[in-house]
Amino acid sequence: MAFCREIDKEKMIQRQTYRTDGEVRENDAEHAWHMAVMTVLLAEYANEPIDVLKTVTMLLIHDIVEIDAGDTFAYDEEGKKTQREREVKAAQRIFGLLPEDQQADFRGLWEEFEAGETPEAKFARTMDNIQPAMLGDGSGGRSWREHGTKLSQILGRNSTTPEGAEALWDYSYSHWLMPNVEKGNIKDE
Amino acid sequence: MAFCREIDKEKMIQRQTYRTDGEVRENDAEHAWHMAVMTVLLAEYANEPIDVLKTVTMLLIHDIVEIDAGDTFAYDEEGKKTQREREVKAAQRIFGLLPEDQQADFRGLWEEFEAGETPEAKFARTMDNIQPAMLGDGSGGRSWREHGTKLSQILGRNSTTPEGAEALWDYSYSHWLMPNVEKGNIKDE
Repeated sequence: MAFCREIDKEKMIQRQTYRTDGEVRENDAEHAWHMAVMTVLLAEYANEPIDVLKTVTMLLIHDIVEIDAGDTFAYDEEGKKTQREREVKAAQRIFGLLPEDQQADFRGLWEEFEAGETPEAKFARTMDNIQPAMLGDGSGGRSWREHGTKLSQILGRNSTTPEGAEALWDYSYSHWLMPNVEKGNIKDE
Repeated sequence: MAFCREIDKEKMIQRQTYRTDGEVRENDAEHAWHMAVMTVLLAEYANEPIDVLKTVTMLLIHDIVEIDAGDTFAYDEEGKKTQREREVKAAQRIFGLLPEDQQADFRGLWEEFEAGETPEAKFARTMDNIQPAMLGDGSGGRSWREHGTKLSQILGRNSTTPEGAEALWDYSYSHWLMPNVEKGNIKDE
Protein backbone atom coordinates (compact mmCIF):
# COMPACT_ATOMS: atom_id res chain seq x y z
CA MET A 1 0.00 0.00 0.00
CA ALA A 2 2.97 2.33 0.59
CA PHE A 3 3.91 1.77 -3.06
CA CYS A 4 0.31 2.22 -4.26
CA ARG A 5 0.14 5.56 -2.50
CA GLU A 6 3.62 6.70 -3.56
CA ILE A 7 2.93 6.22 -7.29
CA ASP A 8 0.15 8.81 -7.08
CA LYS A 9 3.04 11.23 -7.70
CA GLU A 10 3.37 9.96 -11.28
CA LYS A 11 0.29 12.08 -12.04
CA MET A 12 2.43 15.15 -11.34
CA ILE A 13 5.17 14.36 -13.89
CA GLN A 14 4.42 16.46 -16.98
CA ARG A 15 5.52 15.32 -20.41
CA GLN A 16 6.20 17.50 -23.45
CA THR A 17 3.24 16.10 -25.39
CA TYR A 18 0.00 18.07 -25.42
CA ARG A 19 -3.38 16.42 -25.04
CA THR A 20 -5.56 16.66 -28.14
CA ASP A 21 -7.10 19.88 -26.77
CA GLY A 22 -3.70 21.43 -27.58
CA GLU A 23 -3.72 23.28 -24.25
CA VAL A 24 -2.61 21.02 -21.45
CA ARG A 25 0.43 18.74 -21.47
CA GLU A 26 -0.30 15.15 -20.58
CA ASN A 27 1.37 13.55 -17.58
CA ASP A 28 3.01 10.16 -17.15
CA ALA A 29 -0.04 8.47 -15.61
CA GLU A 30 -2.33 9.60 -18.43
CA HIS A 31 0.27 8.53 -21.00
CA ALA A 32 0.56 5.06 -19.42
CA TRP A 33 -3.23 4.65 -19.28
CA HIS A 34 -3.59 5.64 -22.92
CA MET A 35 -0.94 3.18 -24.12
CA ALA A 36 -2.38 0.38 -21.98
CA VAL A 37 -5.80 0.71 -23.64
CA MET A 38 -4.15 0.95 -27.07
CA THR A 39 -2.14 -2.21 -26.36
CA VAL A 40 -5.29 -4.21 -25.60
CA LEU A 41 -6.76 -3.04 -28.92
CA LEU A 42 -3.65 -3.17 -31.12
CA ALA A 43 -1.77 -6.23 -29.81
CA GLU A 44 -2.90 -8.15 -32.91
CA TYR A 45 -0.55 -5.97 -34.97
CA ALA A 46 2.57 -7.04 -33.03
CA ASN A 47 5.26 -8.52 -35.29
CA GLU A 48 5.56 -11.48 -32.90
CA PRO A 49 2.84 -12.78 -30.54
CA ILE A 50 2.92 -10.93 -27.21
CA ASP A 51 1.66 -11.61 -23.70
CA VAL A 52 -0.86 -8.78 -23.44
CA LEU A 53 -1.05 -8.59 -19.62
CA LYS A 54 2.73 -8.50 -19.39
CA THR A 55 2.95 -5.74 -22.00
CA VAL A 56 0.16 -3.72 -20.39
CA THR A 57 1.79 -4.03 -16.96
CA MET A 58 5.15 -3.02 -18.41
CA LEU A 59 3.61 0.10 -19.91
CA LEU A 60 1.65 0.93 -16.76
CA ILE A 61 4.81 1.00 -14.64
CA HIS A 62 7.66 1.90 -17.03
CA ASP A 63 7.66 5.61 -16.15
CA ILE A 64 7.34 5.26 -12.38
CA VAL A 65 11.08 5.97 -12.02
CA GLU A 66 10.38 9.49 -13.31
CA ILE A 67 8.76 10.32 -9.94
CA ASP A 68 12.33 10.81 -8.71
CA ALA A 69 14.27 11.13 -11.97
CA GLY A 70 11.91 13.47 -13.85
CA ASP A 71 10.84 13.23 -17.48
CA THR A 72 13.79 13.44 -19.85
CA PHE A 73 12.58 14.94 -23.13
CA ALA A 74 13.26 12.65 -26.08
CA TYR A 75 15.55 15.19 -27.73
CA ASP A 76 17.37 16.50 -24.62
CA GLU A 77 20.87 15.16 -25.32
CA GLU A 78 22.40 16.62 -22.12
CA GLY A 79 19.69 15.18 -19.88
CA LYS A 80 20.02 11.77 -21.51
CA LYS A 81 23.65 11.50 -20.35
CA THR A 82 22.61 11.18 -16.69
CA GLN A 83 19.19 9.59 -17.31
CA ARG A 84 20.17 5.96 -16.66
CA GLU A 85 21.94 6.72 -13.38
CA ARG A 86 19.04 8.84 -12.10
CA GLU A 87 16.48 6.24 -13.09
CA VAL A 88 18.28 3.26 -11.53
CA LYS A 89 18.46 5.10 -8.21
CA ALA A 90 14.75 5.89 -8.48
CA ALA A 91 13.90 2.27 -9.29
CA GLN A 92 15.75 1.14 -6.16
CA ARG A 93 13.85 3.50 -3.91
CA ILE A 94 10.35 3.25 -5.40
CA PHE A 95 10.16 -0.45 -6.33
CA GLY A 96 11.89 -1.00 -2.97
CA LEU A 97 8.58 -0.10 -1.29
CA LEU A 98 7.10 -3.40 -2.59
CA PRO A 99 7.34 -6.87 -1.01
CA GLU A 100 10.40 -8.72 -2.36
CA ASP A 101 8.64 -10.87 -4.98
CA GLN A 102 6.68 -7.97 -6.46
CA GLN A 103 9.75 -5.74 -6.31
CA ALA A 104 11.63 -8.30 -8.42
CA ASP A 105 8.70 -8.56 -10.86
CA PHE A 106 8.30 -4.81 -11.40
CA ARG A 107 12.03 -4.10 -11.45
CA GLY A 108 12.40 -6.92 -13.98
CA LEU A 109 9.63 -5.54 -16.19
CA TRP A 110 11.19 -2.08 -16.11
CA GLU A 111 14.63 -3.43 -17.01
CA GLU A 112 13.07 -5.55 -19.77
CA PHE A 113 11.41 -2.44 -21.20
CA GLU A 114 14.69 -0.53 -21.05
CA ALA A 115 16.58 -3.33 -22.81
CA GLY A 116 13.94 -3.52 -25.55
CA GLU A 117 14.78 -7.05 -26.63
CA THR A 118 11.72 -9.24 -25.96
CA PRO A 119 8.57 -9.14 -28.12
CA GLU A 120 6.70 -7.45 -25.25
CA ALA A 121 9.38 -4.80 -24.72
CA LYS A 122 9.61 -4.13 -28.45
CA PHE A 123 5.85 -3.67 -28.70
CA ALA A 124 5.79 -1.49 -25.58
CA ARG A 125 8.49 0.74 -27.08
CA THR A 126 6.49 0.96 -30.31
CA MET A 127 3.53 2.18 -28.24
CA ASP A 128 5.77 4.62 -26.36
CA ASN A 129 6.71 6.21 -29.67
CA ILE A 130 3.48 6.11 -31.66
CA GLN A 131 1.13 7.38 -28.92
CA PRO A 132 2.97 10.74 -28.74
CA ALA A 133 2.88 10.95 -32.56
CA MET A 134 -0.90 10.46 -32.44
CA LEU A 135 -1.22 13.25 -29.86
CA GLY A 136 1.28 15.41 -31.75
CA ASP A 137 -0.96 15.27 -34.79
CA GLY A 138 -4.13 15.52 -32.67
CA SER A 139 -2.92 18.71 -30.99
CA GLY A 140 -2.02 20.44 -34.25
CA GLY A 141 1.72 19.76 -33.93
CA ARG A 142 2.17 22.23 -31.06
CA SER A 143 4.96 20.44 -29.18
CA TRP A 144 6.93 19.79 -32.38
CA ARG A 145 6.68 23.46 -33.32
CA GLU A 146 7.64 24.68 -29.85
CA HIS A 147 10.75 22.50 -29.84
CA GLY A 148 11.64 23.04 -33.52
CA THR A 149 11.70 19.26 -33.86
CA LYS A 150 13.34 17.91 -37.02
CA LEU A 151 12.14 14.90 -38.99
CA SER A 152 15.65 13.44 -38.74
CA GLN A 153 15.40 13.53 -34.92
CA ILE A 154 12.05 11.74 -35.00
CA LEU A 155 13.27 9.12 -37.45
CA GLY A 156 16.39 8.59 -35.33
CA ARG A 157 14.34 8.05 -32.20
CA ASN A 158 12.03 5.72 -34.11
CA SER A 159 14.75 3.57 -35.64
CA THR A 160 13.57 0.54 -33.67
CA THR A 161 9.84 1.37 -33.62
CA PRO A 162 9.03 -0.98 -36.56
CA GLU A 163 10.56 -3.89 -34.58
CA GLY A 164 7.51 -4.06 -32.30
CA ALA A 165 4.77 -3.59 -34.87
CA GLU A 166 5.70 -2.66 -38.42
CA ALA A 167 2.08 -1.95 -39.42
CA LEU A 168 1.68 0.54 -36.55
CA TRP A 169 4.91 2.33 -37.40
CA ASP A 170 3.77 2.59 -41.05
CA TYR A 171 0.45 4.01 -39.88
CA SER A 172 2.13 6.53 -37.59
CA TYR A 173 4.56 7.60 -40.32
CA SER A 174 1.93 8.10 -43.03
CA HIS A 175 -1.00 9.40 -40.92
CA TRP A 176 0.65 11.41 -38.15
CA LEU A 177 4.23 12.32 -39.04
CA MET A 178 4.28 13.08 -42.78
CA PRO A 179 1.15 15.27 -42.72
CA ASN A 180 2.91 17.40 -40.09
CA VAL A 181 6.04 17.63 -42.20
CA GLU A 182 3.82 18.91 -45.02
CA LYS A 183 2.20 21.46 -42.69
CA GLY A 184 5.61 22.64 -41.49
CA ASN A 185 5.05 21.51 -37.90
CA ILE A 186 8.01 19.13 -38.20
CA LYS A 187 11.14 20.52 -39.90
CA ASP A 188 12.46 18.57 -42.88
CA GLU A 189 15.98 19.77 -43.69
CA MET B 1 -7.39 4.64 -34.25
CA ALA B 2 -10.42 6.97 -34.18
CA PHE B 3 -11.33 5.40 -30.83
CA CYS B 4 -7.74 5.61 -29.55
CA ARG B 5 -7.67 9.31 -30.32
CA GLU B 6 -11.17 10.01 -29.00
CA ILE B 7 -10.45 8.55 -25.56
CA ASP B 8 -7.74 11.19 -25.04
CA LYS B 9 -10.69 13.27 -23.79
CA GLU B 10 -10.98 11.06 -20.70
CA LYS B 11 -7.95 12.99 -19.37
CA MET B 12 -10.18 16.06 -19.22
CA ILE B 13 -12.89 14.53 -16.99
CA GLN B 14 -12.20 15.74 -13.46
CA ARG B 15 -13.24 13.67 -10.47
CA GLN B 16 -13.98 14.92 -6.95
CA THR B 17 -10.98 13.14 -5.45
CA TYR B 18 -7.78 15.10 -4.86
CA ARG B 19 -4.38 13.72 -5.67
CA THR B 20 -2.18 13.16 -2.62
CA ASP B 21 -0.74 16.67 -3.06
CA GLY B 22 -4.18 17.84 -1.88
CA GLU B 23 -4.20 20.54 -4.55
CA VAL B 24 -5.28 19.09 -7.88
CA ARG B 25 -8.24 16.81 -8.48
CA GLU B 26 -7.42 13.61 -10.32
CA ASN B 27 -9.06 12.84 -13.66
CA ASP B 28 -10.60 9.65 -14.99
CA ALA B 29 -7.50 8.54 -16.93
CA GLU B 30 -5.26 8.93 -13.88
CA HIS B 31 -7.81 7.12 -11.72
CA ALA B 32 -8.00 4.21 -14.19
CA TRP B 33 -4.21 3.96 -14.41
CA HIS B 34 -3.87 3.94 -10.63
CA MET B 35 -6.44 1.17 -10.16
CA ALA B 36 -4.92 -0.90 -12.98
CA VAL B 37 -1.51 -0.94 -11.27
CA MET B 38 -3.16 -1.69 -7.92
CA THR B 39 -5.07 -4.59 -9.47
CA VAL B 40 -1.87 -6.22 -10.73
CA LEU B 41 -0.42 -5.96 -7.22
CA LEU B 42 -3.52 -6.77 -5.15
CA ALA B 43 -5.32 -9.42 -7.24
CA GLU B 44 -4.12 -12.06 -4.79
CA TYR B 45 -6.52 -10.60 -2.21
CA ALA B 46 -9.62 -11.18 -4.39
CA ASN B 47 -12.26 -13.28 -2.63
CA GLU B 48 -12.49 -15.49 -5.73
CA PRO B 49 -9.74 -16.05 -8.35
CA ILE B 50 -9.87 -13.35 -11.05
CA ASP B 51 -8.61 -13.02 -14.61
CA VAL B 52 -6.18 -10.15 -14.07
CA LEU B 53 -6.02 -8.92 -17.70
CA LYS B 54 -9.79 -8.87 -17.92
CA THR B 55 -10.08 -6.95 -14.65
CA VAL B 56 -7.35 -4.49 -15.63
CA THR B 57 -8.99 -3.89 -19.03
CA MET B 58 -12.38 -3.41 -17.38
CA LEU B 59 -10.92 -0.77 -15.07
CA LEU B 60 -8.99 0.94 -17.87
CA ILE B 61 -12.16 1.50 -19.90
CA HIS B 62 -15.00 1.63 -17.37
CA ASP B 63 -15.12 5.43 -17.18
CA ILE B 64 -14.82 6.13 -20.93
CA VAL B 65 -18.57 6.82 -21.10
CA GLU B 66 -17.96 9.86 -18.90
CA ILE B 67 -16.38 11.62 -21.90
CA ASP B 68 -19.97 12.34 -22.97
CA ALA B 69 -21.90 11.69 -19.74
CA GLY B 70 -19.59 13.51 -17.30
CA ASP B 71 -18.49 12.33 -13.86
CA THR B 72 -21.46 11.79 -11.55
CA PHE B 73 -20.28 12.38 -7.97
CA ALA B 74 -20.87 9.35 -5.76
CA TYR B 75 -23.23 11.28 -3.50
CA ASP B 76 -25.09 13.33 -6.14
CA GLU B 77 -28.56 11.78 -5.83
CA GLU B 78 -30.11 14.03 -8.52
CA GLY B 79 -27.37 13.31 -11.07
CA LYS B 80 -27.62 9.59 -10.42
CA LYS B 81 -31.24 9.54 -11.64
CA THR B 82 -30.20 10.25 -15.24
CA GLN B 83 -26.76 8.64 -15.05
CA ARG B 84 -27.63 5.31 -16.65
CA GLU B 85 -29.42 6.89 -19.62
CA ARG B 86 -26.59 9.34 -20.26
CA GLU B 87 -23.97 6.63 -20.00
CA VAL B 88 -25.69 4.15 -22.32
CA LYS B 89 -25.93 6.82 -25.02
CA ALA B 90 -22.25 7.60 -24.52
CA ALA B 91 -21.31 3.92 -24.73
CA GLN B 92 -23.12 3.63 -28.05
CA ARG B 93 -21.29 6.56 -29.58
CA ILE B 94 -17.79 6.02 -28.20
CA PHE B 95 -17.49 2.22 -28.30
CA GLY B 96 -19.22 2.55 -31.70
CA LEU B 97 -15.94 3.96 -33.05
CA LEU B 98 -14.37 0.49 -32.70
CA PRO B 99 -14.54 -2.43 -35.15
CA GLU B 100 -17.52 -4.66 -34.37
CA ASP B 101 -15.69 -7.40 -32.45
CA GLN B 102 -13.82 -4.96 -30.22
CA GLN B 103 -16.95 -2.87 -29.78
CA ALA B 104 -18.75 -5.95 -28.44
CA ASP B 105 -15.80 -6.78 -26.15
CA PHE B 106 -15.50 -3.30 -24.61
CA ARG B 107 -19.23 -2.74 -24.38
CA GLY B 108 -19.53 -6.15 -22.72
CA LEU B 109 -16.79 -5.35 -20.21
CA TRP B 110 -18.44 -2.05 -19.34
CA GLU B 111 -21.85 -3.68 -18.84
CA GLU B 112 -20.21 -6.42 -16.77
CA PHE B 113 -18.64 -3.78 -14.54
CA GLU B 114 -21.96 -2.00 -14.19
CA ALA B 115 -23.77 -5.22 -13.25
CA GLY B 116 -21.11 -6.09 -10.67
CA GLU B 117 -21.85 -9.79 -10.60
CA THR B 118 -18.73 -11.63 -11.84
CA PRO B 119 -15.59 -12.03 -9.70
CA GLU B 120 -13.76 -9.58 -12.02
CA ALA B 121 -16.52 -6.95 -11.80
CA LYS B 122 -16.75 -7.34 -8.04
CA PHE B 123 -13.02 -6.87 -7.65
CA ALA B 124 -13.02 -3.90 -10.06
CA ARG B 125 -15.76 -2.25 -8.03
CA THR B 126 -13.76 -2.86 -4.85
CA MET B 127 -10.85 -1.04 -6.49
CA ASP B 128 -13.16 1.75 -7.65
CA ASN B 129 -14.14 2.35 -4.04
CA ILE B 130 -10.91 1.81 -2.15
CA GLN B 131 -8.60 3.85 -4.42
CA PRO B 132 -10.54 7.09 -3.68
CA ALA B 133 -10.44 6.24 0.04
CA MET B 134 -6.65 5.90 -0.20
CA LEU B 135 -6.42 9.31 -1.90
CA GLY B 136 -8.96 10.80 0.49
CA ASP B 137 -6.71 9.90 3.39
CA GLY B 138 -3.56 10.80 1.42
CA SER B 139 -4.87 14.29 0.67
CA GLY B 140 -5.81 15.04 4.28
CA GLY B 141 -9.50 14.37 3.76
CA ARG B 142 -10.05 17.53 1.67
CA SER B 143 -12.79 16.23 -0.63
CA TRP B 144 -14.74 14.66 2.27
CA ARG B 145 -14.56 17.97 4.17
CA GLU B 146 -15.58 20.05 1.16
CA HIS B 147 -18.64 17.88 0.54
CA GLY B 148 -19.53 17.37 4.21
CA THR B 149 -19.47 13.64 3.52
CA LYS B 150 -21.06 11.44 6.17
CA LEU B 151 -19.78 8.04 7.26
CA SER B 152 -23.24 6.59 6.60
CA GLN B 153 -23.00 7.72 2.95
CA ILE B 154 -19.61 6.09 2.55
CA LEU B 155 -20.75 2.86 4.20
CA GLY B 156 -23.86 2.83 2.00
CA ARG B 157 -21.81 3.21 -1.14
CA ASN B 158 -19.42 0.52 0.08
CA SER B 159 -22.08 -2.04 0.95
CA THR B 160 -20.81 -4.40 -1.76
CA THR B 161 -17.10 -3.47 -1.55
CA PRO B 162 -16.23 -6.51 0.63
CA GLU B 163 -17.68 -8.82 -2.09
CA GLY B 164 -14.63 -8.25 -4.31
CA ALA B 165 -11.91 -8.43 -1.68
CA GLU B 166 -12.84 -8.52 1.98
CA ALA B 167 -9.25 -8.01 3.13
CA LEU B 168 -8.92 -4.83 1.08
CA TRP B 169 -12.19 -3.42 2.37
CA ASP B 170 -11.06 -4.14 5.93
CA TYR B 171 -7.78 -2.36 5.22
CA SER B 172 -9.54 0.63 3.70
CA TYR B 173 -11.99 0.84 6.61
CA SER B 174 -9.38 0.68 9.34
CA HIS B 175 -6.49 2.57 7.69
CA TRP B 176 -8.21 5.23 5.56
CA LEU B 177 -11.81 5.75 6.65
CA MET B 178 -11.86 5.45 10.44
CA PRO B 179 -8.79 7.68 11.00
CA ASN B 180 -10.63 10.39 9.03
CA VAL B 181 -13.76 9.95 11.13
CA GLU B 182 -11.56 10.48 14.19
CA LYS B 183 -10.01 13.61 12.66
CA GLY B 184 -13.47 14.97 11.82
CA ASN B 185 -12.90 14.90 8.04
CA ILE B 186 -15.77 12.43 7.68
CA LYS B 187 -18.93 13.23 9.67
CA ASP B 188 -20.19 10.51 12.01
CA GLU B 189 -23.73 11.38 13.07
